[in-house]
Amino acid sequence: MFIIGEKINGMFKSVREAVAGRDKRVIRELANAQLAAGANALDVNVGPGSAEPIKDMEWLITSIREVTQCPLAVDTTKPDVMELGLTLAGDNAFLNSVSGDKEKLDILIPLAKKYNSKIVALTMTKTGVPQNTDTRMEIAANIVAAAVEHGYDTAGLYIDPLILPVNVAQPHASAVIETIRQIGLLCDPPPKTVLGLSNVSQGTIFRGLIDRTYLVMAISAGLDAAILNPLDKELMDAMIATELLLGKTLYCDSFLDAYHKK
Amino acid sequence: MFIIGEKINGMFKSVREAVAGRDKRVIRELANAQLAAGANALDVNVGPGSAEPIKDMEWLITSIREVTQCPLAVDTTKPDVMELGLTLAGDNAFLNSVSGDKEKLDILIPLAKKYNSKIVALTMTKTGVPQNTDTRMEIAANIVAAAVEHGYDTAGLYIDPLILPVNVAQPHASAVIETIRQIGLLCDPPPKTVLGLSNVSQGTIFRGLIDRTYLVMAISAGLDAAILNPLDKELMDAMIATELLLGKTLYCDSFLDAYHKK
Repeated sequence: MFIIGEKINGMFKSVREAVAGRDKRVIRELANAQLAAGANALDVNVGPGSAEPIKDMEWLITSIREVTQCPLAVDTTKPDVMELGLTLAGDNAFLNSVSGDKEKLDILIPLAKKYNSKIVALTMTKTGVPQNTDTRMEIAANIVAAAVEHGYDTAGLYIDPLILPVNVAQPHASAVIETIRQIGLLCDPPPKTVLGLSNVSQGTIFRGLIDRTYLVMAISAGLDAAILNPLDKELMDAMIATELLLGKTLYCDSFLDAYHKK
Repeated sequence: MFIIGEKINGMFKSVREAVAGRDKRVIRELANAQLAAGANALDVNVGPGSAEPIKDMEWLITSIREVTQCPLAVDTTKPDVMELGLTLAGDNAFLNSVSGDKEKLDILIPLAKKYNSKIVALTMTKTGVPQNTDTRMEIAANIVAAAVEHGYDTAGLYIDPLILPVNVAQPHASAVIETIRQIGLLCDPPPKTVLGLSNVSQGTIFRGLIDRTYLVMAISAGLDAAILNPLDKELMDAMIATELLLGKTLYCDSFLDAYHKK
């Protein structure tokens, strides 16, 4: 599993305050802590309330680059912020994210190609989030078609079937698991799958239990990557145990510690 | 999920001592505690060390029947102990278990039919435990064929694809998950699937984590029933959350409590 740490996001108060006060220490610590906990990449999002998103994105990435050269997922809906972010992020960055609308794909796929970035593409369009697996798969197929059309290597394409909170859209949970299974059959080589995990438990009481249970289900269905909170130790332990039981890592008695030392 | 509580088993010291000393209180408490924690049925096993298995089985079932009329899974390899157990257990009992050897099936399927019992059948034969999914499916198909031959309704047939400890037979973990998926396609209506769960973590250090992670994976693959320790609250919470995320129960904020009140 490829883990993208979700914590450097202006939606979190500590990050919002750090950005406003230009307090690099908070950002550097969040970067280091997530990588130490097992993240392979870091999401970077200035948050919806940013008045100067370009400046804030530049400051965030510069702050992170003081402590790590790890891959970054540039997380914004604004094309100019995205381009600035990809310029600064450098190698192995993710463009996070593009929706399944043709006009968006036609702008952002060439951008990802220009910067040699991976792409997180959501199975949603301007008409909204699909209600079932079939509609998700239809959008996923359109995304793959657009990638091929633009000469973008589908090995760098991560499709996010978009999970909604289980307390407001319960049937989506199993539909998304089925979508993860089916995306593996879309083309050869298939696009990868990714989930913005914590959305599934938004507004619920037992968030940790729901997050880690859903992650186990999704990995077991073939999930390749997740945007999640690596500082949630029980979540990471569940992820590590799932990979062990799927035979993706070799058993040893200290498999939890071994994962972090690899 | 249909939960068969595993705790009344002579392999556990407290049960072994209770049987030896004819201390009904211990057995009654284990029965009550497992049912209160969410068990739908109780496994009953005198243990491998019993010198008088028929007398011990009779005493165990009689003790349990003082507090509950719940379904019992009569767990023994000895046909005479099995028949005595099924006689005493009454309605909705399980014959636990029969292997996939034709000569065993020809004795035990008619016995289950005579007592109107459900059957737990293991995908193993006298040649041992299969090494992969295909061989497990071959034995499962033979078990279904034997059931049909004896006029036994396959709706009462629970096939256990037999999980081995992950620390000694790691590739079996994913093979068993795949077997659970495939058993659903064997016939119409398909046999049910069941797992003796705790075997997967036998001899490992993080038993709870491995048990609950594997249970989530197995339920997500279609598992119908499990023999497990319902007194492991984290295990039961993971099971309840999985059923919620699969849409098998309706979401409410107190879904954990709601499960136990249904």
